[in-house]
Amino acid sequence: MTATQTDWSAARYLAFEDERTRPARDLLAQVPLDGAARAVDMGCGPGNSTELLVERFGTAAVSGFDTSPDMLAKARARLPGIAFEQADLATWQPDGEPDLLFANAVLQWVPDHVAVVVRLARTLRPGGYLAVQMPDNLDEPSHAEMRAVAASDPRWAARLARAADARDAVVDPGVYYDALQAVCARVEVWVTVYHHVLEGPGAIARWFETTGLRPFLNPLSQAEQADFLAAYTDRMAQAYPAQADGRVLLRLPRLFVVARR
Amino acid sequence: MTATQTDWSAARYLAFEDERTRPARDLLAQVPLDGAARAVDMGCGPGNSTELLVERFGTAAVSGFDTSPDMLAKARARLPGIAFEQADLATWQPDGEPDLLFANAVLQWVPDHVAVVVRLARTLRPGGYLAVQMPDNLDEPSHAEMRAVAASDPRWAARLARAADARDAVVDPGVYYDALQAVCARVEVWVTVYHHVLEGPGAIARWFETTGLRPFLNPLSQAEQADFLAAYTDRMAQAYPAQADGRVLLRLPRLFVVARR
Repeated sequence: MTATQTDWSAARYLAFEDERTRPARDLLAQVPLDGAARAVDMGCGPGNSTELLVERFGTAAVSGFDTSPDMLAKARARLPGIAFEQADLATWQPDGEPDLLFANAVLQWVPDHVAVVVRLARTLRPGGYLAVQMPDNLDEPSHAEMRAVAASDPRWAARLARAADARDAVVDPGVYYDALQAVCARVEVWVTVYHHVLEGPGAIARWFETTGLRPFLNPLSQAEQADFLAAYTDRMAQAYPAQADGRVLLRLPRLFVVARR
Repeated sequence: MTATQTDWSAARYLAFEDERTRPARDLLAQVPLDGAARAVDMGCGPGNSTELLVERFGTAAVSGFDTSPDMLAKARARLPGIAFEQADLATWQPDGEPDLLFANAVLQWVPDHVAVVVRLARTLRPGGYLAVQMPDNLDEPSHAEMRAVAASDPRWAARLARAADARDAVVDPGVYYDALQAVCARVEVWVTVYHHVLEGPGAIARWFETTGLRPFLNPLSQAEQADFLAAYTDRMAQAYPAQADGRVLLRLPRLFVVARR
């Protein structure tokens, strides 16, 4: 994760830990490495994805980095034996040739991420893997309505005019395929559209409060944040109608790329 | 799989075995059963999905059924210790309460499959799982062009007017959620859009020749089949442009449902 103006909240991010960890599990399940001497969790967040790498490859093989001090503190507390450092994926370079570079839900915050992905793939040992997962939800109501609420109120419209720019858009799967096939032996790309079962529209707001809403909330005062969230939650109630049991399904498409060097 | 006019070809179906087995693996990975006394592979095909159940639960726990004699012969040869029977998912009923009912790429051939899924879920033991995967590709070029080729030639247009009816359309994920949540403790629904890397448009035709194209090819003479396939392959070359390395990405969306009774 990349820090913006204020730090990330690790505790609130993990309120939906099962749902947030599933894409990382699904990604790692498609990496057919029996062992690894050097596996790096790039943008490790609070360490929930790092823990999956440790389960598979052991403590000695795994390291992680993130830009957020709060996330790093949480990750270190969770996995005391692991080396975590503060670094930015946009410029980070591995020492030596890694067996696995793992990027779970981080590259959407990195400008020009296709070029970054190719640069990183070149650093892998032959036979090593790059594994990437990115939310591809900018066209979903969850994100279209963030932009709509930002534009709808003269109190904050000017301040939030560039908030949507914090995210780099996921591009067509064929673009990742072509870019990585040029430097890799094998490339697999897929998209999974999760339908997370949440208690209601308020839970959708809480889900994104710690991720996608941050560039919209950070520039606002406490009172404005509350008003923004109330308006956003109302729109979520419209966009995600209740199922028969009263819950809502949060549709969340995510792009996956697994490439073998 | 459900037989139509001629039998299924197990050997040609397995020409893409890795790609065809991956959705079954992905489905089983989301079934958190440590063990099972009774796991049934419904519409087992040539046994590649059944083999995954055997790896997880052991030979004694697993059985399978299919409508196709050729598929059943292949499955029996592959897994000699397993009880395979000829049966149709539309009417089949389990003996006793199964721990797992597994339906990989079969329910799209069963009319009114949502009602069938609910009927089957009710037969599970408490805590047992229903696991379903269905291709959701009727709106993809791969299938739109089957219908277009069928309608385009007066030699066969009348005979193929109902060919598309063989498939039951996948409905909105929320419909499966509501139908199953009424009889289950927990329901998860997701869609994965695979992008299978194939050698070219001819490989797309070979992929569907043993599945989706069957209702279109079966009513035709040998010569007509060859003409149909040539026209279809031409359209695939238009619809799936080559990647930089000359290969094509076959976009194939599949719906998954995992429900715990």
